[in-house]
Amino acid sequence: MIRAYAASEPGGELTPYEYDPGQLGDEDVEIQVEYCGICHSDLSMLDNEWGMTQYPFIPGHEVVGTIAAIGDHVKDRQIGQRVGLGWYSRSCMGCEWCMSGDHNLCLTAEGTIVGRHGGFADRVRAHHSWTTPLNDGVDPAKAGPLFCGGITVFNPIVQFNIKPTDHVGVIGIGGLGHMALRFLKAWGCEVTAFSGSPDKEAEAKELGATHFVNSRDPEALKAIANSLDMILSTVSADLPWADYLATLRPKGRLHIVGVAPNPLSFHVFPMIAGQKSISGSPLGSPATVSKMLEFAARHGVEPITELFPISQVNEAIDKLRHGSPRYRLVLKVS
Amino acid sequence: MIRAYAASEPGGELTPYEYDPGQLGDEDVEIQVEYCGICHSDLSMLDNEWGMTQYPFIPGHEVVGTIAAIGDHVKDRQIGQRVGLGWYSRSCMGCEWCMSGDHNLCLTAEGTIVGRHGGFADRVRAHHSWTTPLNDGVDPAKAGPLFCGGITVFNPIVQFNIKPTDHVGVIGIGGLGHMALRFLKAWGCEVTAFSGSPDKEAEAKELGATHFVNSRDPEALKAIANSLDMILSTVSADLPWADYLATLRPKGRLHIVGVAPNPLSFHVFPMIAGQKSISGSPLGSPATVSKMLEFAARHGVEPITELFPISQVNEAIDKLRHGSPRYRLVLKVS
Repeated sequence: MIRAYAASEPGGELTPYEYDPGQLGDEDVEIQVEYCGICHSDLSMLDNEWGMTQYPFIPGHEVVGTIAAIGDHVKDRQIGQRVGLGWYSRSCMGCEWCMSGDHNLCLTAEGTIVGRHGGFADRVRAHHSWTTPLNDGVDPAKAGPLFCGGITVFNPIVQFNIKPTDHVGVIGIGGLGHMALRFLKAWGCEVTAFSGSPDKEAEAKELGATHFVNSRDPEALKAIANSLDMILSTVSADLPWADYLATLRPKGRLHIVGVAPNPLSFHVFPMIAGQKSISGSPLGSPATVSKMLEFAARHGVEPITELFPISQVNEAIDKLRHGSPRYRLVLKVS
Repeated sequence: MIRAYAASEPGGELTPYEYDPGQLGDEDVEIQVEYCGICHSDLSMLDNEWGMTQYPFIPGHEVVGTIAAIGDHVKDRQIGQRVGLGWYSRSCMGCEWCMSGDHNLCLTAEGTIVGRHGGFADRVRAHHSWTTPLNDGVDPAKAGPLFCGGITVFNPIVQFNIKPTDHVGVIGIGGLGHMALRFLKAWGCEVTAFSGSPDKEAEAKELGATHFVNSRDPEALKAIANSLDMILSTVSADLPWADYLATLRPKGRLHIVGVAPNPLSFHVFPMIAGQKSISGSPLGSPATVSKMLEFAARHGVEPITELFPISQVNEAIDKLRHGSPRYRLVLKVS
């Protein structure tokens, strides 16, 4: 039996819950969970915001732990090996995207907490290829958030060939944004942090920002017109899209990883005149997660976390829901 | 004196008009105009739709002719050489975009008919670097439209590394779209034509389309979900953007070269899930124009044109304004 914390209804409290996972699939592994980050999408799923939650619901998709069991056909994971697991826990492994190393774009990729039981538990299962071995130099107590929030902001840097000579903006200094600042600083870029909280300036600069721009000040945006190669928007908010497009240099890209509640809207003409792009991306592939971990270890990039014992899971959820955690919350499971 | 056709007020008739061009600039050339295409943007400028027209206004920015005079510092053009001239006739030649071969993204690039006199004239002037020698194998009587409409649809193929294995959609089978179909067919792609005129199907297929989709039929769009690598929108219309985004494969790009009158609007989530992009681009650089001409000559790609003597310029303008020219109108000047 796997011992977990589950909610029985939308927004419900998490209470101890046991389930029988059945026989381990031939290509699956079972992870003994050591740590599990708490992500805003755990909250969205807990509340059934996206209409696809099944109850009892066990959150948790920023898992770090050790391999406790492997399926009969698994050759590349060993018992005791430390791995991480993120938003996705399996994909078809046969489509052109899986076959091209873009497993996160597989049209049938399956979420770790979508229709299955997540990592707020002593053990969790996944397809072996979606578990990624941790490098030495990556702190397992802090690594969890890299597997969801971290890869979400690291992946576009790789996908769109961001170069150390580039000038990159990050909108939002939160769970995702603070990791983006650290990655981009380590990448060698000139980094501009956009935030509506002017009191975060010193913090943003410590995290890696060269410049800080008050995003609620239209004049401040105008002052940096035509200056950025890429902007990474990490916030789930409706933004003045045209104003941000105007801060991009020709060929610039506004890349969005936070889901704005309302449709994006902007006039096409400035996009045509400056050959600009707007894009989005989901998470990253296992291969890119590996690259991220190696890069993070080499440059000492890690999320700033606050640790809660799993017995305080509801307090942690509450802090994420109502507080301003700086910046990611992690449960210590075992 | 240069003999031209000019309008003295917005939407006005074009009447014979002479002007003294003054001394030829050191880096400029004077072209003896043989042919000049008529583009929708000549119409927009004639009508002062964009608020930047100066009268008397001489349209014409799809020029083909021979070099009649060269400035003192011009070394790479010779008298008698046949060249083309498009939307831009000069750029600063010093900024990073000009220095990187992206002259069309120069923030101070100057339009051939914006604040200067265009090619509905026996002669027209431009900076030498914005005149591009015509290859053998390109018919000068038909080449004019390549320098504006042609490069507008050819440039994105180059900019975004479209490959012959790609599946590409073209929205609109008109002045730009028919050239896009021909270029993409020659490029080796599988091409899908989108049109709201089902009677254009046979025509679209002759021009190079493998498939034809009635763009007014939402079910037809749904039937090709997740199938296209790139869509080139050549129409100046408000489209069901989300429906087109859904026809893109993961990593797909909706590229827009027609100016939609109203802001684009679409929800960001499908863009994030599929790592999709929306982008735009203006014209192309002189280097890309050269590539286009060489490619067009090798593959026999040319616009389908209807020729008018310049004495019938007002009839030609009227046909563009009220008719459905198939597909580009060209004035024979000399």
